[in-house]
Amino acid sequence: MEYRIEHDTMGEIKVPNDKYWGAQTERSFENFKIGVEKMPKALIYAFANLKRSLAVVNNSLGKLPDDKKEAIVKACDEIIAGKFDDNFPLAIWQTGSGTQSNMNLNEVIANRATEIMGGDFRKEKLVHPNDHVNMSQSSNDTFPTAMSIVSVEQVEKKLIPAIDELIATFKKKVEEFKNIIKIGRTHLQDATPLTLGQEFSGYLSMLEHSKVQILATLPTLRELAIGGTAVGTGLNAHPQLSEKVSEELTRLLGINFVSSPNKFHALTSHDAITTTHGAMKALAANLMKIANDIRWLSSGPRCGLGEIRIPENEPGSSIMPGKVNPTQCEAITMVAVQVMGNDAAIGFAASQGNFELNVFKPVIIYNFLQSLDLLADSMHSFNIHCAVGIEPNLEKIDHNLHNSLMLVTALNPHIGYENAAKVAKNAHKKGISLKESAKELGLISEEDFNKYVDPSKMIG
Amino acid sequence: MEYRIEHDTMGEIKVPNDKYWGAQTERSFENFKIGVEKMPKALIYAFANLKRSLAVVNNSLGKLPDDKKEAIVKACDEIIAGKFDDNFPLAIWQTGSGTQSNMNLNEVIANRATEIMGGDFRKEKLVHPNDHVNMSQSSNDTFPTAMSIVSVEQVEKKLIPAIDELIATFKKKVEEFKNIIKIGRTHLQDATPLTLGQEFSGYLSMLEHSKVQILATLPTLRELAIGGTAVGTGLNAHPQLSEKVSEELTRLLGINFVSSPNKFHALTSHDAITTTHGAMKALAANLMKIANDIRWLSSGPRCGLGEIRIPENEPGSSIMPGKVNPTQCEAITMVAVQVMGNDAAIGFAASQGNFELNVFKPVIIYNFLQSLDLLADSMHSFNIHCAVGIEPNLEKIDHNLHNSLMLVTALNPHIGYENAAKVAKNAHKKGISLKESAKELGLISEEDFNKYVDPSKMIG
Amino acid sequence: MEYRIEHDTMGEIKVPNDKYWGAQTERSFENFKIGVEKMPKALIYAFANLKRSLAVVNNSLGKLPDDKKEAIVKACDEIIAGKFDDNFPLAIWQTGSGTQSNMNLNEVIANRATEIMGGDFRKEKLVHPNDHVNMSQSSNDTFPTAMSIVSVEQVEKKLIPAIDELIATFKKKVEEFKNIIKIGRTHLQDATPLTLGQEFSGYLSMLEHSKVQILATLPTLRELAIGGTAVGTGLNAHPQLSEKVSEELTRLLGINFVSSPNKFHALTSHDAITTTHGAMKALAANLMKIANDIRWLSSGPRCGLGEIRIPENEPGSSIMPGKVNPTQCEAITMVAVQVMGNDAAIGFAASQGNFELNVFKPVIIYNFLQSLDLLADSMHSFNIHCAVGIEPNLEKIDHNLHNSLMLVTALNPHIGYENAAKVAKNAHKKGISLKESAKELGLISEEDFNKYVDPSKMIG
Amino acid sequence: MEYRIEHDTMGEIKVPNDKYWGAQTERSFENFKIGVEKMPKALIYAFANLKRSLAVVNNSLGKLPDDKKEAIVKACDEIIAGKFDDNFPLAIWQTGSGTQSNMNLNEVIANRATEIMGGDFRKEKLVHPNDHVNMSQSSNDTFPTAMSIVSVEQVEKKLIPAIDELIATFKKKVEEFKNIIKIGRTHLQDATPLTLGQEFSGYLSMLEHSKVQILATLPTLRELAIGGTAVGTGLNAHPQLSEKVSEELTRLLGINFVSSPNKFHALTSHDAITTTHGAMKALAANLMKIANDIRWLSSGPRCGLGEIRIPENEPGSSIMPGKVNPTQCEAITMVAVQVMGNDAAIGFAASQGNFELNVFKPVIIYNFLQSLDLLADSMHSFNIHCAVGIEPNLEKIDHNLHNSLMLVTALNPHIGYENAAKVAKNAHKKGISLKESAKELGLISEEDFNKYVDPSKMIG
Repeated sequence: MEYRIEHDTMGEIKVPNDKYWGAQTERSFENFKIGVEKMPKALIYAFANLKRSLAVVNNSLGKLPDDKKEAIVKACDEIIAGKFDDNFPLAIWQTGSGTQSNMNLNEVIANRATEIMGGDFRKEKLVHPNDHVNMSQSSNDTFPTAMSIVSVEQVEKKLIPAIDELIATFKKKVEEFKNIIKIGRTHLQDATPLTLGQEFSGYLSMLEHSKVQILATLPTLRELAIGGTAVGTGLNAHPQLSEKVSEELTRLLGINFVSSPNKFHALTSHDAITTTHGAMKALAANLMKIANDIRWLSSGPRCGLGEIRIPENEPGSSIMPGKVNPTQCEAITMVAVQVMGNDAAIGFAASQGNFELNVFKPVIIYNFLQSLDLLADSMHSFNIHCAVGIEPNLEKIDHNLHNSLMLVTALNPHIGYENAAKVAKNAHKKGISLKESAKELGLISEEDFNKYVDPSKMIG
Repeated sequence: MEYRIEHDTMGEIKVPNDKYWGAQTERSFENFKIGVEKMPKALIYAFANLKRSLAVVNNSLGKLPDDKKEAIVKACDEIIAGKFDDNFPLAIWQTGSGTQSNMNLNEVIANRATEIMGGDFRKEKLVHPNDHVNMSQSSNDTFPTAMSIVSVEQVEKKLIPAIDELIATFKKKVEEFKNIIKIGRTHLQDATPLTLGQEFSGYLSMLEHSKVQILATLPTLRELAIGGTAVGTGLNAHPQLSEKVSEELTRLLGINFVSSPNKFHALTSHDAITTTHGAMKALAANLMKIANDIRWLSSGPRCGLGEIRIPENEPGSSIMPGKVNPTQCEAITMVAVQVMGNDAAIGFAASQGNFELNVFKPVIIYNFLQSLDLLADSMHSFNIHCAVGIEPNLEKIDHNLHNSLMLVTALNPHIGYENAAKVAKNAHKKGISLKESAKELGLISEEDFNKYVDPSKMIG
Repeated sequence: MEYRIEHDTMGEIKVPNDKYWGAQTERSFENFKIGVEKMPKALIYAFANLKRSLAVVNNSLGKLPDDKKEAIVKACDEIIAGKFDDNFPLAIWQTGSGTQSNMNLNEVIANRATEIMGGDFRKEKLVHPNDHVNMSQSSNDTFPTAMSIVSVEQVEKKLIPAIDELIATFKKKVEEFKNIIKIGRTHLQDATPLTLGQEFSGYLSMLEHSKVQILATLPTLRELAIGGTAVGTGLNAHPQLSEKVSEELTRLLGINFVSSPNKFHALTSHDAITTTHGAMKALAANLMKIANDIRWLSSGPRCGLGEIRIPENEPGSSIMPGKVNPTQCEAITMVAVQVMGNDAAIGFAASQGNFELNVFKPVIIYNFLQSLDLLADSMHSFNIHCAVGIEPNLEKIDHNLHNSLMLVTALNPHIGYENAAKVAKNAHKKGISLKESAKELGLISEEDFNKYVDPSKMIG
Repeated sequence: MEYRIEHDTMGEIKVPNDKYWGAQTERSFENFKIGVEKMPKALIYAFANLKRSLAVVNNSLGKLPDDKKEAIVKACDEIIAGKFDDNFPLAIWQTGSGTQSNMNLNEVIANRATEIMGGDFRKEKLVHPNDHVNMSQSSNDTFPTAMSIVSVEQVEKKLIPAIDELIATFKKKVEEFKNIIKIGRTHLQDATPLTLGQEFSGYLSMLEHSKVQILATLPTLRELAIGGTAVGTGLNAHPQLSEKVSEELTRLLGINFVSSPNKFHALTSHDAITTTHGAMKALAANLMKIANDIRWLSSGPRCGLGEIRIPENEPGSSIMPGKVNPTQCEAITMVAVQVMGNDAAIGFAASQGNFELNVFKPVIIYNFLQSLDLLADSMHSFNIHCAVGIEPNLEKIDHNLHNSLMLVTALNPHIGYENAAKVAKNAHKKGISLKESAKELGLISEEDFNKYVDPSKMIG
């Protein structure tokens, strides 16, 4: 491996010669050999979009010359296109401000921009990482800004579409299953009937609610810290910088962003991302419930509830031949568990700010993006490999429905709760049907029984 | 103790004769001797408001006679007035649907209403707990409805006012402290200056953001399950019941409620309450950060940061004479920890629904209301016993400000980041002032130094 | 209400005249009107045992006169006997060192001891709360010592016996059910058979493992902070105090305690209690799994798995007559959820110590004792109201067993996994029995099939 | 890309021709495109050691021919040597039993063993993945066995050594700092003095306690599920298999393992791993406290506590020149937060078993190993880049010590707590020294003051 010498305010350091990063990236790379978790690509790209927007705005404010601006913009576009993915080697577990990841961007952009301008970054810096790429900025405002950008973007462009995909499937199922009457279950015990379509409308409604709940948290997540610089005062930044960068990012990405109304808040509180993840946790809870229902309803094939059938995707057992398992349900319930753990980590981290900065930023964005990716990916996987293929097992559904004792509830308005209870208990004890029990107890005529105890009239 | 005999569909049971509750309450009381946590009073009152509204609506729909309605309304009003607080003895740790707490309401109301109608509930039931008080209802829709009522009510009437109270105090502090320039701190290390007013504006902004974030979650929390009855189909309930009860509750309490658009969702998902608590967790994180800052800034009296003074409320130590501690900060940080734990419990519980019902309702509402009470009470306590009395320690603030090396940041635009770093490092190494260091290194004239390095120009 | 004037180093304050507490208790009572959670009685009693032991040891070391010692011992014994339960009114949400709760003990004991010595504590203090009751102590060592005492005591005297009670029941069930062969289930899908006794042996083993795991954490929990006084140095305490008090407590309570080998650790780390609660969380996870299994196996009565029957304790529904629900299972699963939340709170709190003290002590012990009480109470309740009454539903068990396709696994060693899979899949597709399928495919003779596919030989 | 056709009981599927995996691996790879988290290498190696041991034992029991055994052993050794790292592509988010990861091992080993035996696995299987590599096994017993193996191994070989490394450093610091007297702090407020060595002995003791607490949880973690096969009955496995494999693994790895005494427990409960992680969470809490102390004690350089100095590793700010931050402390506190989140995920997952299997195994082992790696790596990084270089700032320490008012505590035994409080409060109010205050109040002679208030006598 060949090396070159780079320097920063601490002195010189050897850097791999084929990489664009500089001295500070190298120091952090060497000082933090912890785990395998790297700064997520999506965050790096959001950061590049931010640096690009700052170059444009600093140029428009007369602070950055045209040629440097152009070179920075081009370098950023290359990063966003994925050309330098191997130039961002830093761990999540570094300084809690993400300073060296900000510098990683600054250094790669400065060196590549120097090259674009015709210079040799190994010898000279036509674009300086601090003075030009980081102009009017601090890690303390850029890192949380990049967090906001990537969070809103991934919610809008990845998470919501994945919810919508599953919503579309459940809408179809609600329609397909609307006339299939089946037994309801509460406390895992037989309850009054409903249609399979109604049961699935509950799942549909959960996803619709989660979507609404997540979107309702976005307004404060759109507030950008940029312009606050070191401690929130905006030292060394133009007073209009924050507004202009927010507008430029809105234009560039097609996503609404606004300048945070209080930069001291923006550097040291992560209430917005915590709240959004709180709503994502509620989505995880909904998904766990849905996936649990589906694997229970499809349990069997001979000794379970068996009211629906789901696609068979893999051999289920290395020892039991012919076994098939609800594996997509299992993946999504494991994801739900992970999101719950991540939520605990985010809340804790968000509480640990001191004075002008919260230095738990990397662990917050790592957990947020992991949750988001896992939720979106697992919903898509669950949809195409399971949900779209759900079919009713009509025979089993019908058998259960007509066996149930809870149809007795329809008699309450006619013979009262206590007499109805006698009918059900007598049937249960003797293993007979409700009608036989009612007749035996003489509490209602067969004609009236047939009129009132009709599942098709019990479903609202 | 004297007893009477009450009965339900399981048979007879002895009940203390001085209590209004009936057989099912008694069974649950005896079967669940677990812990000391009882159904919260606020939930009981919300339940009574719900039962009252149902009596009014069932009467208006022609299903409940006037005299029974009047008696039920009166009994509910008495419960809400606190006259029967000792008649609700049931534990949180009972059936997960809260069925026996619904029956506790039904039984107390039925017996008291019987009395109001001139009957002797020990001998006869002029109002029946199931057929009249629980008319057109199930525990499965009333319990989550009571959860929604009490949650929205307590957020609007208790939590938000407590936030507002602290907002008012911080607004005053921002104004009072607006001209006090002090050193900033990031990573616990000295940073560029800001005013004490700006620092407190960050706290103010956190509370304002938390308020916005919590309020943004309320729309789906206002959706009421009532009308879904046993499994969500609305069996035995009038089709207009849900809308009418929502309107009656809105009228009665002056709080907006709407009928849930999908009752299957409403019985089995608790996404709304999970999301609202997620935003309350973000408030807890903000409060922890604020309280931590305040106790750090007031640390000392001789060997800490000591930039502010807080009220002295109790002797701080049983062994160290004269010690005073930031006890209100400690109480609120312990509350923040508790809210984080409660949030984990709520998310977990919300994920565990099966089919037509989630049977973790009591543990959800218990944790939600505990968090809410603790947050509101501790903000009020913190406000009156600490926040209002915060005073700056001007001498210490001034001393720190003029000692700091980070004023050097103001030189970046004039001598560049790297030269500025040399000035700071040289001063640090030799224990001299920035100006002495700059002069020694010959990087800037004294005149320019004085012009640029002026804290009053560094605060935005 | 009548008041008297008490004073402390902050001055005078009015105290209810019928209470034994003094000025510092009163201040804390007035300054912390937060929530309803009071210092648990068990902690107060542990504290009184500690104060008693200190009086004995201080006397034996020649520092406390006999008459004061005797009076203190008597006052403590009265507290432990429950005579002064209404004299400990302080909230969990107070100073994080529990200083005022230590003073609450000191004040009540000092005043009552004064009375015992024939004095009138309203006029004079024959025993002084700081100089005598708190002699050689600080809140900083007494509060964590009381935490250790109550934790070990409640684990040994309450939690382990409750586990043992359930172990005894499951042992009986294992024996009773040892010959009942039933279908196994993995992934909720039919699997190879086992006996119902084997299934319950898994539950038994879980409880036995949890017991071992919890007991394995006790050694470091037995280490007492006493003797560290204010910061861990033991200032103002006799060098032998810690050892002697540990011995006296061991003698008094019949529970092993040792002097902590490093008092700086003992004041500021709560690793032992966190670890013990971690093992209690694993117990909660085991209980949730057991309770879930039992409610699933008893699901029905007509449309569920229905392989066991559990006792019917309450009417299950306010609308569905005759419904019975697995309510004890629901209570214990809600407890499990609560313990998970409490565990998150404890871990967080334990991480927040600073310098010579962790000031999250009350929230830690509150959560620990709540978990412990809920686990112990709910296991006892679950045992007497559910576990002891579990009965097999032999008809359903037998029906399921002989229907299952997974008996095919026994053919693996004879016809290979892939051929066995063909037999199962063919049977599933055509809705026929395994034997019919095997015959149809010509993969094994009927004689061999009967020999190999025998559930009674498949259970180990 | 070239493909070949592989098949399993579901039919044929295209597999990349340069990979050794087979049909089931390929199905899982295609069906679970969720996230980026792969089965950890350490788990794959543990699995290969298990497969190796099973081949040896099956051979010794006369079930597996010598040539196949030899080939399997060789293939496993190659995997463990890292030769096939790119042949294990499966996600964590797959079936919750890890069945396809078991098959991934079976398939790669079978194909490579076929090759070793001179066959062409693209045409024939001289070693069959199910019948030979998975002989006498099920995913249901092998996956949890691999979890146990890797957990104990990583605790003993990675985590404990990292703790020991930091213990060694702190031991040196305790010795180095043993004569440096400094002010203590409780509640962030000045307290009585101790030595810097004593303060560090607290950190040392925390690590020693954590080590003891973690090791105390290992006995039940050493219990192996192997031999339980599909549901715990051991169907198709030799009765001595479990004991023999445990012995073989103990011999092979030099780590103690035992056969689980109850295989039903071993497949469906993860109480041991939950308990061990609970102790690791307590370690995380200790590390957070230590790292927080160190960054606070080194805060400054001019406006903080500044009692110690830590190594300067990177430029701390992209805008503030010369700033240096406690970055290693920040990394380790972020790790602590992550471990707390992981602990919540593990506890939740462990509670979700049903009947004969817990299908949350991959998410459990993923979180466990992430915590372990992060704790070990961050302790090592913190040690070499921070802890070893900690130096006292004697000037600041001395200044603080002699300024403190809490030295007054030494007067308690001589003038009583209340008089001592008067001395401190008077000094605080007037900004004078304790001695001046004591003299002014006439409560003690100067001679006695000098005798009693001597920090060197206050440190035990």
